[in-house]
Amino acid sequence: MFTVFLQKFSDLDILSYQSDFITYLESQKFSREPKNLYEPIDYILQLGGKRIRPVLTLMAANIFSDDYQKALPAALAVEVFHNFTLVHDDIMDDAPLRRGNETVHEKWGINTGILSGDAMLILAYQYFENYEPVVFQKLAQLFSKTALEVCDGQQLDVDFETRNDVTIDEYIKMITLKTSVLVAAALKMGAIVAKANEEQAQHLYNYGLNLGIAFQLQDDYLDTFGDPESFGKQVGGDIIENKKTYLYLKALEVANADDKENLRALYNGKQKNNTEKIAVVSSIFEKNNIPKETHKLIEYYTNKSFESLKHLDISDENKEGLRAFGMNLMSRKV
Amino acid sequence: MFTVFLQKFSDLDILSYQSDFITYLESQKFSREPKNLYEPIDYILQLGGKRIRPVLTLMAANIFSDDYQKALPAALAVEVFHNFTLVHDDIMDDAPLRRGNETVHEKWGINTGILSGDAMLILAYQYFENYEPVVFQKLAQLFSKTALEVCDGQQLDVDFETRNDVTIDEYIKMITLKTSVLVAAALKMGAIVAKANEEQAQHLYNYGLNLGIAFQLQDDYLDTFGDPESFGKQVGGDIIENKKTYLYLKALEVANADDKENLRALYNGKQKNNTEKIAVVSSIFEKNNIPKETHKLIEYYTNKSFESLKHLDISDENKEGLRAFGMNLMSRKV
Repeated sequence: MFTVFLQKFSDLDILSYQSDFITYLESQKFSREPKNLYEPIDYILQLGGKRIRPVLTLMAANIFSDDYQKALPAALAVEVFHNFTLVHDDIMDDAPLRRGNETVHEKWGINTGILSGDAMLILAYQYFENYEPVVFQKLAQLFSKTALEVCDGQQLDVDFETRNDVTIDEYIKMITLKTSVLVAAALKMGAIVAKANEEQAQHLYNYGLNLGIAFQLQDDYLDTFGDPESFGKQVGGDIIENKKTYLYLKALEVANADDKENLRALYNGKQKNNTEKIAVVSSIFEKNNIPKETHKLIEYYTNKSFESLKHLDISDENKEGLRAFGMNLMSRKV
Repeated sequence: MFTVFLQKFSDLDILSYQSDFITYLESQKFSREPKNLYEPIDYILQLGGKRIRPVLTLMAANIFSDDYQKALPAALAVEVFHNFTLVHDDIMDDAPLRRGNETVHEKWGINTGILSGDAMLILAYQYFENYEPVVFQKLAQLFSKTALEVCDGQQLDVDFETRNDVTIDEYIKMITLKTSVLVAAALKMGAIVAKANEEQAQHLYNYGLNLGIAFQLQDDYLDTFGDPESFGKQVGGDIIENKKTYLYLKALEVANADDKENLRALYNGKQKNNTEKIAVVSSIFEKNNIPKETHKLIEYYTNKSFESLKHLDISDENKEGLRAFGMNLMSRKV
């Protein structure tokens, strides 16, 4: 699952960042007392995942400084926060599995899921204590703003479940808050640790923000049209859950009256035969050119992301590396 | 319910602190979007309560500086954090009522309770952004340490429910973490904002830590022996819930074999007749002098708290004020 991302892009050695991060993560002890609080934290952090966010923090730090290892605590804060959102979101979604394993609340109960999650959010802030006051404040400030936006995004996602008038603009806003701001902040934190100036750090943030949107749209696409052999999750999961993704919202915009009515009916409640539901919805999407439309939008946000590279005062090689990283993320199959 | 606390102790004008705090709280807008996330936050913060913790922050600031209003954002951080713990604890305890009103999760559902609580924890950190970097870092650092201790205390409380070998020392440790550290931190934050030196701030912290323990023990006493007319909650609630408070643990230590067996049996599961259970348990407590033992321990921690006052380089009048505040808290009926 990692292999797609594990490449050396010019000077930016993704493989090293990832392995440095995992070594650092493992050096951290989450085996504090009381055991019932910290064991679940250790568990979820060891479950793996692509570690994209901490890698971005290290990569950003390395662009502005040779001593990118200084960004490890900030990278860990981002990863612990990301996993905190997974623990609480999984409770809210009543999800039994995460990365192929039992979710925290499934294994230890909802109360433990809530409390261990809370502790993770606090732990994330504590990693910033490794930095001197001015950097600490900048990191914590960006982190609080971002964390609150992620909560806003999660709430919008919940609100959308019961709304039938969600627009594409609203959907983009929701995924921006729920997913992209953390990708963007992960990069900016690396820049802050490496003492890049505010303007440069903000251009990197914007690169991440648009890349994050493209990344989530690619996720939506793969969820329906990914190869069941290589895709890590069940293909069609969003359709089963009646998720109002870009694919669905765009189809409602361009399809004829019959298709629209059909889609709306299929998304109104849980069908008994999911295989058939997935097949019908997919064919409506295909008939209406939704895969192509989605790719067009992914390309739009990827290019918008690359626009920010122009304003960065960094080597052409590093710019090429960031571009290659983005292209790679968008051509992924998992 | 406020009146017990609302007194002017020498220079320390509790009434003013409280009214300043409430004015500041009301000036804050919690009416952001998405509405479903912020409405519950507004709701819980408007439910009232004694506002003891923010008052302590302002009082501590006023001891070291005339400009105590500078401590208002820190006081609000403490109060928002305290209310965050109430929202999440009420989910874990499955509590329907808080301050005589519906709990957040009862009114809006568990998912909203989790997410609005998360947002409150983040908001608490954001209030520290009102201070310059060095003060910001000191406050956030103390806050993170305290918040994590409160989580530890909550976890111990949960663990104790299913343990039959809890010692009195362990119980004191649990209430120290769950309750006292926040009282202590509330005071220390006021001292930090007022630029008191670390040693002085720490003495005030210790005053609060022991006062907090005495306060919780008084809470335990009132829960069983409070006057049903004036006590805000149902008298006997802890007994109904089989809470292993100091009263219960001390009784197990000093009672004869028959009483011990009786108590253990009564605390093993939920009785159908709560009135009778409360009557029997209370009489065992009384027969074994538990009210007197509890008062002795309250006095011990109150005196220990006052010991810290000796080390404070503040006016005798202010020391007298802190002492009177403590005495007042301990003689309360609610």
